[in-house]
Order: sequence, then structure tokens, then C-alpha cells
Amino acid sequence: MPHRPFMLGIAGDSGVGKTTISSGIARLLGQERTTNICVDDYHKYDRKQRAELQITPLNPECNYMDIMEQHVRLLAMGEPILKPVYNHSTGTFDPPVYVPPPRAIRDNGRLIPRAVILEGLLTLFSEPMRERYHLKVYLDPEEDLRREWKVKRDVAKRGYTPEQVVADIERRMPDSKAYIWPQKEHADIVVRFYRPPGYDPERPSTLSVRITLKRSLPKLDLTEVLHSAYEDEPSVIRLEARKEADILDISGGLEPERAAVFERLIWEQLGQHAEHFNPELIGTFWDKGGQSYPLALTQLVIAYYLVHMREQAIQKGALAYA
Amino acid sequence: MPHRPFMLGIAGDSGVGKTTISSGIARLLGQERTTNICVDDYHKYDRKQRAELQITPLNPECNYMDIMEQHVRLLAMGEPILKPVYNHSTGTFDPPVYVPPPRAIRDNGRLIPRAVILEGLLTLFSEPMRERYHLKVYLDPEEDLRREWKVKRDVAKRGYTPEQVVADIERRMPDSKAYIWPQKEHADIVVRFYRPPGYDPERPSTLSVRITLKRSLPKLDLTEVLHSAYEDEPSVIRLEARKEADILDISGGLEPERAAVFERLIWEQLGQHAEHFNPELIGTFWDKGGQSYPLALTQLVIAYYLVHMREQAIQKGALAYA
Repeated sequence: MPHRPFMLGIAGDSGVGKTTISSGIARLLGQERTTNICVDDYHKYDRKQRAELQITPLNPECNYMDIMEQHVRLLAMGEPILKPVYNHSTGTFDPPVYVPPPRAIRDNGRLIPRAVILEGLLTLFSEPMRERYHLKVYLDPEEDLRREWKVKRDVAKRGYTPEQVVADIERRMPDSKAYIWPQKEHADIVVRFYRPPGYDPERPSTLSVRITLKRSLPKLDLTEVLHSAYEDEPSVIRLEARKEADILDISGGLEPERAAVFERLIWEQLGQHAEHFNPELIGTFWDKGGQSYPLALTQLVIAYYLVHMREQAIQKGALAYA
Repeated sequence: MPHRPFMLGIAGDSGVGKTTISSGIARLLGQERTTNICVDDYHKYDRKQRAELQITPLNPECNYMDIMEQHVRLLAMGEPILKPVYNHSTGTFDPPVYVPPPRAIRDNGRLIPRAVILEGLLTLFSEPMRERYHLKVYLDPEEDLRREWKVKRDVAKRGYTPEQVVADIERRMPDSKAYIWPQKEHADIVVRFYRPPGYDPERPSTLSVRITLKRSLPKLDLTEVLHSAYEDEPSVIRLEARKEADILDISGGLEPERAAVFERLIWEQLGQHAEHFNPELIGTFWDKGGQSYPLALTQLVIAYYLVHMREQAIQKGALAYA
């Protein structure tokens, strides 16, 4: 099946929720129709060496950027890769894993190019990578939220103390600002989770989200649909057209019934490209299996752009040959 | 330095002396001017899995042939690779190693494309690899000799008993015949070490060698030079022109003084491409640091073809762009 895959790149700092977003999109599209890759494993040095060299994994100098770029290019060409694996428990490297050629999927008699979802700290760092993505997303939560999320995850999953995680965040801050944050300007979609007034940290499902849809995106009717459906309730969902972008604002105060209507609305737009509708599967976040409607809608909005941009690329023949 | 490397592929069964030949050629050309790669590390399965599946590493099905082909292609294009590493002691995989882009070398003000020497069991197996080599060599010692060498090495370096090695050779024999040995027909040069009459196994330096120089090779004056220099002694060195190949036969009975004359003769033909002449460095074999004149001359003959074919490729502009 000689089709090139559709390439989605997701970047953002440590703890912003890259895996949550990308695995949610994969569940939406069907996991056997996507290839999910984390490109944070291309370090030159293990943890001990990094400590000796006083270098952080956020620094491109700490990574084989040439191999990362090569692997993104090979996947975009429909080729397999042998991907390095960094082990967060040991701080060293495991044997590499084989990623099969990202072949097209036969779906109701039609060949649909596979979606390759690449997420990582430096996914959008260099032009040789950026030019390979069809859609580029940057995750940009409020910095205080990112810290809260990163502390929770690194304590629960990577065995650190909260103090260690905070010290690590501070130590990495110059590199975050120098290498990670500037990637935002290259994204087509910027996702910013933020705390609404009166936010209760014990209820993370009530976070709001602001999705910036830049002019580099094609004009799609999704935003108008959402807007018109709820234009009578600007406090819950709001679409604002600015010169350089559309800003879609979704409040954490959204009621479950209304969220469900929204979800189904976008889901129907996904048409044949989505799996059987299962609202249980979307908008879940890792820590307690909780669900967030703004998160679910974010995943749906990105999946919507992916599916429609892929359809346009198929029509243009841009994915025809691997 | 935008030059493609010169690609030398060396294939042969386990124990035939691939590393001995390829490291000898690298020493001749200067190790900092060559990139030596063993492509036997692309197994799909570790030792335990192979035992369960009853599959040998000689079987292409046991290897990521697509990745092997991809890496050969990437190196031929002047790109770096992240190469998998199989650990013969543990029977499992180590972290991969970075192989830098095989850049050209500045030599007396001139850019000389680097020689990439790839050796392995299946180096010449498939057309996508074969088409990337400029020169293809197959090592084909007498089968009894190969067994003797493999037992010696696997006992000394890999911790097996002689009985284990012999059982392993027998178990692999169907795959040797099916996948490894047929590669011989694709080689430009076939090297066959053999035991002359009255051969003493305690003196491996007295082995003879027969080098088949096929018609796919360019016509070079080396063989005539050697032939005319010793045409009065056909028992020691002999060149026979057949329809499909020239056969160069070098006797293990060659006297050291004559071997030294030979060596210098070829060395001078290598000209500026070779390092400072050091007869100590060539023709050595691993087991007791011994030296063999037929082995030294084999390495010199292959290096001679490499250097002259690379020069022809430079003149044609065939290595000009990476």
C-alpha cells in the first residue's frame, strides 16, 4: 500500500500533557490506524553523563538531532525505523524497538493513509522536521499548571520526591525558555489549559482551555458550527476571530449534557474516519481516570483538523506515493 | 564535505574471517579514513527467542532486513545511522550506537571519499543492498577450515565448548546453504583460503589463497604486474585468465623475502591513499598475532581495487554529492 502517512507533530515542555493529548487522538481515530511515537529518546548521553556534563535533555546538543530528523523523514516517506529507547527508570538506554512502515489502512474499500503522531520536547525544533508535518500542535498550559502536572507525574511514575521535581524544573528553566517555548510560533494549533476564576485544584476536570487556530490552518466549518450552536451562551464556549488566528475558548464550567452534544457534533464531522463512538474513551487524563470535557473537545478539534486536512491531501494526491 | 563514501561489502558464513579481512583493509587505508560496520546486529529476536522459534540468525526472516537495507542506503548517501548492537556474550541487545556521517577526508589538499566497509552474514543478500556497494567481496574458505576457525574463535571469545560450536554449525547448515553461500555469485572478488598439500594445522600462516577476480571488476594492471614479476615461479604465484574471471593463486610456501617484495609492489600502487607503510600491520590474524603472507596479499589486493575503483568514481563524479 504505497501511501505516505499523514504527519502530526506535537511539541511542548515536560509535563504539558503531550502523551494525554496524542493517545486521546489515537483512540479517537482507532489505535490500529495510527502510529504513535515519542521522539524524546534520542539522547546522546545517559543520566549520569548528563549530570557530569551539566546538560539537560532539553538542549538539542544533548540529542542526536540528525537522527531524530532522519527518522521523522523516513516515517514521512512510509519507511520503518529502529527507534532508540530511553528508560526513565534507569536513566540509561534499552534496546531499540522496530516501528513498522506506517502503511495505509483499508477502510470500507478505500485506502486511508495512516496518521503518524509524533510527540516530544523538540518535535518542532528544526526546519527539516517541521517541513515533514502536515499539522503542528504546541501544548502551552499555564506554567503553574504544568508544574503541578509534572510534579504529580514524576512522583507517581518516575519515583522522584516533589522537591526533586521542582529543583529539576528550575534547573531546566533556561533551556525551556531557550529551546522548547520558542517552538510555539511554528505551531498551527496552540492549546492552553488555564484555571478559570474560582478553580478548585481537586477538580482538574473543571479546567478551561483556549485553542488558538492559526491562519496557517485551512478554513473549516467546525468553529462556525460550534460558535453558532452556542452563540447564545458566550460564557461557556466562545469563538473570537483575530487578525492572526481564531481563538476558541471552552469553559471548564460546561455542563455534561452540553459537552455531550458538542462531542457528538464534532464526532459526526469525523464521519467514517473515526471508530465507533465511545464517549468513555475521550477526554480521560491519566492520574485518576478522570474525564475533562475541555480536554475531550481539544482532542476532538485536533482530530477534526487532522481528518479533514488528510482528506484534502488525499484529494490533491499529496499522500499518494511512499 | 558533500562526498558520498565508497562502499565495500564483505559477506561470508560465520567464522570465515570477515573481521580479519575488513580490519586489515582499514589498517591499510588508515582507520580514521574508513568506517567499519558489522551488519550482523539486525536480529529481530534475542538468543532465547531464537531457540523458542527454532530460527537461526542466518535466516533473513530472523533479521530486520528492511532496516539493514535502509542503513546501508543511508550510509551510501553520506548520512549517519543509529546502529543496533547485538551482544554475543548475553545473547540480547545493547543500546544502539551512533555512526557519524561518513564524510570525506582531506588528504594533501584533496578530498578523498571515505571508505565504508560493511561486513556480515547477509551483506550481499538482497538487491537493495548490493546496488549500493561499489565493490563486493565474498569469503569462501574450505569448509573444514571455516569450522576449525569458528571453533577456535567461539571457544576463545564467546565461551562455548568445541562440541557446542560443532552442533551449532550443523544446526545452521541448511540456512548456510540456503541463504549465505548463494551470495558468492554476486561478489566481484571471491577469496578462498585452502590447505596446500602437506599443510600443518599448527602453522596457519602457510595456508594458500585463491582469489577470483570476476569480469565485473575493472581491468587493472595489478594482476599483470604480479604475474610478470614471478612468471618464472608458477608454483608460488600464478595468474590464470579464464573466461569468467582471473584466478590469482598465492601459495603459503611464499618466502618472506619474496612476500615483502610483493607487498611493497602493491603498496606502491596504493600511492597516496595508504598510510605509512608498516608491514607489521598487515596479514595478521587474531588468534596468536601471527602473520600470513597470503592473507596480507589478499588484503592488499582488495585495498588496491578499492583505491583504484574509488579514484575512477571520483574522476567520473560519481561520489561528488552526498
